[in-house]
Amino acid sequence: VKGVDEFALIRLLTERKLPNEGQSGVFVGIGDDAAVAAVSPGFHLVLSCDTMVQETHFKKTTMKCTDIGYKAMASSISDMAAMGAIPRYALVSLSTHKETPVQELQELYDGLYECAEQFDVAVVGGDTTSTSGVLTVSVTIIGEVEPGKALLRSAARLGDVVFITGCLGSSAAGLDYLLTQNRDANGVLAPSIQIAQLMAAHQRPQPQVKAGRLLLQSGLCHALNDISDGLASEAWEIAEASGCGIRLQEKAIPIEPSLQAYADEQGKQAMEWIMYGGEDYQLLGTVPADQAAALQAEFQQRGLCLYVIGEVTSGKTGVELLRADGVLLAIEKKGYNHF
Amino acid sequence: VKGVDEFALIRLLTERKLPNEGQSGVFVGIGDDAAVAAVSPGFHLVLSCDTMVQETHFKKTTMKCTDIGYKAMASSISDMAAMGAIPRYALVSLSTHKETPVQELQELYDGLYECAEQFDVAVVGGDTTSTSGVLTVSVTIIGEVEPGKALLRSAARLGDVVFITGCLGSSAAGLDYLLTQNRDANGVLAPSIQIAQLMAAHQRPQPQVKAGRLLLQSGLCHALNDISDGLASEAWEIAEASGCGIRLQEKAIPIEPSLQAYADEQGKQAMEWIMYGGEDYQLLGTVPADQAAALQAEFQQRGLCLYVIGEVTSGKTGVELLRADGVLLAIEKKGYNHF
Repeated sequence: VKGVDEFALIRLLTERKLPNEGQSGVFVGIGDDAAVAAVSPGFHLVLSCDTMVQETHFKKTTMKCTDIGYKAMASSISDMAAMGAIPRYALVSLSTHKETPVQELQELYDGLYECAEQFDVAVVGGDTTSTSGVLTVSVTIIGEVEPGKALLRSAARLGDVVFITGCLGSSAAGLDYLLTQNRDANGVLAPSIQIAQLMAAHQRPQPQVKAGRLLLQSGLCHALNDISDGLASEAWEIAEASGCGIRLQEKAIPIEPSLQAYADEQGKQAMEWIMYGGEDYQLLGTVPADQAAALQAEFQQRGLCLYVIGEVTSGKTGVELLRADGVLLAIEKKGYNHF
Repeated sequence: VKGVDEFALIRLLTERKLPNEGQSGVFVGIGDDAAVAAVSPGFHLVLSCDTMVQETHFKKTTMKCTDIGYKAMASSISDMAAMGAIPRYALVSLSTHKETPVQELQELYDGLYECAEQFDVAVVGGDTTSTSGVLTVSVTIIGEVEPGKALLRSAARLGDVVFITGCLGSSAAGLDYLLTQNRDANGVLAPSIQIAQLMAAHQRPQPQVKAGRLLLQSGLCHALNDISDGLASEAWEIAEASGCGIRLQEKAIPIEPSLQAYADEQGKQAMEWIMYGGEDYQLLGTVPADQAAALQAEFQQRGLCLYVIGEVTSGKTGVELLRADGVLLAIEKKGYNHF
């Protein structure tokens, strides 16, 4: 980006998508001091931001530029799903070294826009700064929700069962593959279809906005969280916020066949990735036990998944796992358990 | 922050200010996947973000940690002032090296909160990440404005005069002092009151939210911008967005006595800092010539300043300066002119 001034750079990155004034709700888009946009009458704002830092959250060898952009947007949108909210607008702050080729930033923005469009999110602004450090992308997402209806971590109750909206662990297994496996002469990976699935889970996670909305609209869902830090950590968050115990059942936790195959091949435990991997962006929540079947039916009708994997208990605040072999294991919040 | 996990760190940084659920309009504050907050009925959202990067925007020798936090918040709030909007909520993304002492981050947050409280802004969320690079602070600000009333850069019209809401150049002179002057043995500056004023202008700029609201509510103001990049650059932005010429009058541009004194002492030109310094965060705007006196009176009544410093012309798009000696000078957008 050397020699390109900030205004020219912003135009380069965003002009293919301008004007966004036509996009739903945007009155003033990129190009003034701030954007102006509508919120639906009577709705409340839902606000979150998520930052991805090179070397900390991704490396050049694990993520293409378009993937970095896509995932930065996806992880922010996932926070809206976790509240049952509708994502509407996004602002992007990009800090980049002046030697970074403009094309890489354009690709990063292509990924950002691709994900944003998939979820009807309008990118309305941001900031582009020069840094002597590593590439840093921060996405702030602005959504909306019906007043009093946002799904909180603290709402789990005794009598609830615990559910997830999809299989976990694939993102971590995909990262494991990207970090450890051999590349071909051009540095390009030539993965099998199964491996490609794991890589995609890591590089292009799919925020569960539809599932989140359905959970809110059903009126049945109690607590909700998205799985950014692994099942163990997210279940702990619900347990701590709600002041309850959570007992997971190993037998009930679904395992993606491609994950199981890769784990077997590598002599590793799929359960390790499921519990402590993270970045799956599926939803983890609780629903009254006697309503679970009804909710599951609603999910099925819409082509969505809902797996009941455990229950809320009156025990000590925390998480335990009833292993397939019948042993009840206390689950640490961070990755101290080995299966 | 070594050894402190992210959740513990967020608590350390924000708990002195929690719970913020009591704060006006905040229903869910820091601690869930996202915050939930109200927007005033019928108002539109105003959205902006601003990022400050160590070495690029500040150095340890020019800004204390509290100043970094204060200024990051102030520069974001200034974008609301520049639209005539009311700032309401903020999200903070902080990327920091793991060797950074927690106390420095607490001081940075103290500064953020100090500025936020001054402008009734509730800090409702954010993200804290580890980086191998330099300290990076990104503040997203969410404000609100009456529908159709936001003050845009593109609204300057022939027949308008150009105004500013305060003196310019002090921030740049303060930075000049901080970068060039000797320190005493302890590395502590012992500045005179005049120098302290210039330093404060650089370290603790004051966003002109009251002036912005008054300009909007008066119904008289046409174009508006905040001065983050110097008078030349901001006047150019209005000229380009509005498709007009802007002629500034050197004689009409006020100069802070402390700035003039420092410039004289250093053998430098105050006008250079005014035109190309930036980070003053005063407002630059246009108003119909025949309404300027009425607006000025309204400002005066509220203890605010409004200086008419030029006019909109039908000439070539761009900015020119009628120098005190009668010479008409074409002003470059960036710092190519020397006075």
